[in-house]
Amino acid sequence: MGDKSVANLGEFGVIQHIFAPIQSKQGEGVQLGIGDDAACLVVPRTQDLLATTDTMVEGIHFSSDADPYLLGQKALAVNLSDIAAMGGLPRWYLLSMAVPNRTSQSWLEEFARGVKAASEMFHVALVGGDTVRSNAKIVITVQMLGLIGQHRAVARSGAQVGDRLYLSGTLGDSAFGLAHLLGKLPAMLADDVSYLSRRHHLPEPRIQLGMALQDAALAHACIDVSDGLLADLQHICEASQVSAVVDVEKLPFSESAQRVIAQYGRSALELALTGGEDYELLFAISPGAADQVEKIVHQVGVSLVEIGEVVGVGERPGVVVRQGGEVLSIAQSGWTHF
Amino acid sequence: MGDKSVANLGEFGVIQHIFAPIQSKQGEGVQLGIGDDAACLVVPRTQDLLATTDTMVEGIHFSSDADPYLLGQKALAVNLSDIAAMGGLPRWYLLSMAVPNRTSQSWLEEFARGVKAASEMFHVALVGGDTVRSNAKIVITVQMLGLIGQHRAVARSGAQVGDRLYLSGTLGDSAFGLAHLLGKLPAMLADDVSYLSRRHHLPEPRIQLGMALQDAALAHACIDVSDGLLADLQHICEASQVSAVVDVEKLPFSESAQRVIAQYGRSALELALTGGEDYELLFAISPGAADQVEKIVHQVGVSLVEIGEVVGVGERPGVVVRQGGEVLSIAQSGWTHF
Repeated sequence: MGDKSVANLGEFGVIQHIFAPIQSKQGEGVQLGIGDDAACLVVPRTQDLLATTDTMVEGIHFSSDADPYLLGQKALAVNLSDIAAMGGLPRWYLLSMAVPNRTSQSWLEEFARGVKAASEMFHVALVGGDTVRSNAKIVITVQMLGLIGQHRAVARSGAQVGDRLYLSGTLGDSAFGLAHLLGKLPAMLADDVSYLSRRHHLPEPRIQLGMALQDAALAHACIDVSDGLLADLQHICEASQVSAVVDVEKLPFSESAQRVIAQYGRSALELALTGGEDYELLFAISPGAADQVEKIVHQVGVSLVEIGEVVGVGERPGVVVRQGGEVLSIAQSGWTHF
Repeated sequence: MGDKSVANLGEFGVIQHIFAPIQSKQGEGVQLGIGDDAACLVVPRTQDLLATTDTMVEGIHFSSDADPYLLGQKALAVNLSDIAAMGGLPRWYLLSMAVPNRTSQSWLEEFARGVKAASEMFHVALVGGDTVRSNAKIVITVQMLGLIGQHRAVARSGAQVGDRLYLSGTLGDSAFGLAHLLGKLPAMLADDVSYLSRRHHLPEPRIQLGMALQDAALAHACIDVSDGLLADLQHICEASQVSAVVDVEKLPFSESAQRVIAQYGRSALELALTGGEDYELLFAISPGAADQVEKIVHQVGVSLVEIGEVVGVGERPGVVVRQGGEVLSIAQSGWTHF
């Protein structure tokens, strides 16, 4: 079979040839999956349901020449990251796509292969969706459903004055990777380009970490860093009616990111703090709970570092960034979609 | 405040000014709604979860000058209709939108007002979503979550040979309404234009009917007619491995639709059978259960008529349309998205 376009395949052809093959035969708790008016799912008695959704638009969130296999993985990963931030176990997802006629069958197949790879890695089952024609760009919407013990969801609103702020993994890699792809930050070692672009294209949702934090009842508040560290910390501050102080010296940067910051200075540092798409977890814990953090680091194998603390709200909830004891004024705060 | 565009409002402005006001203050079973990484929802112990999603694209599923208030209602209605077809009770929804910068604040406000009107009418709560920038057209994706008693979901796959096929409401109104809007079927009474366009713009999800059918354990199989009667009956046939016969004389047409068919003849009849977006329920019941159907008609106040029957699968699952005892060959079978 040659490389047909979506227009040749038709809607039912797309479902039959592209998406039906990637659904799990027997997802846990799936009574009815793809192929009926709605999926029918069994939520265990002891669990609450988590639901989240993310939309990605061609030309806004990914470029037209993006690798469809990586894109398929990312479409799931960004939603998995939201479930991780609540401390939940992701279980099922629905996938909606608006696809222009020009899209090739091989593009869709690669995309579906990426979706399948991520769904197998994180044990989530495709249970429904909608594939429609687009008159311009590809638009991808994933809805992820997860489970969490009753009253155990970790919200953004529980941060308390005196809490220590922790961040998983490293900061800014994804923003640097994207900036390089866009022709900014051109001077970069080949290895750094490779590492940073991978971090941009293939975020690692911190599912195990989120569940461990929830299991230990450790985090008072948690969020995944998708809009940028400062914007997402601001979200915690507003939801919790507190303020926060972050120390630049404490921020975890990869070696590649350190080299980028050494080369480009303050503007690169600001990008790392505001660029977003890190998909790391940012959370607040009691000042006395540092020992427990160490245990979790060993348990899940993800680095966690203290980056600042929660302070009184003052006039209004806000984030202060300090460097060498001085307050740093950061111009642009976070990724905004408009 | 003047009529700002989305670009002026910003993403958080859109959420704060447009969508936050339409979320229910206290949705049933909502532990965490809009404003966290994921919604946290309580599924009652005796219930299974239903999940469905539908995407609508500007220029494909609705025109750029569509009334945003009606569009908001329709975005929910088409998803509610899928929950109805399973016999479930709709409860929560997520709303994702890709919106171009040119979109005005007043357009979004009217759209949100329509969404809110439908959510209040059907007692469903907005619990999450994603609003992002589009570089071309508006794309709307709703994910609807509902509840149903354990093992009570009405699938497409249970139709049995000898079953009678029933359809709620009337057929073809929406397709005729749309055809007139597109400049086809120009000769039409003003009252018919008004009625048929309304049926196109404002489908009535048959929630009460679906629940009554499920409650009475009456339907062996059920589907909502969104792709067209023949295409959706074909879905039932394939899922149930049966075939079906439909008699044109039995089909329920509104007075307006009857006038259109009288004027335009066979092509209008075919459009009614294949045009789609009826959002009526099509279901199969035991031949001896006609009395129970009458009870349900009185109970929910929606007309139900027998339109045909389920027969042996033959060579492969298929639908035969008869008129005056003769087999009618219908060219185009159903709405396809590509």
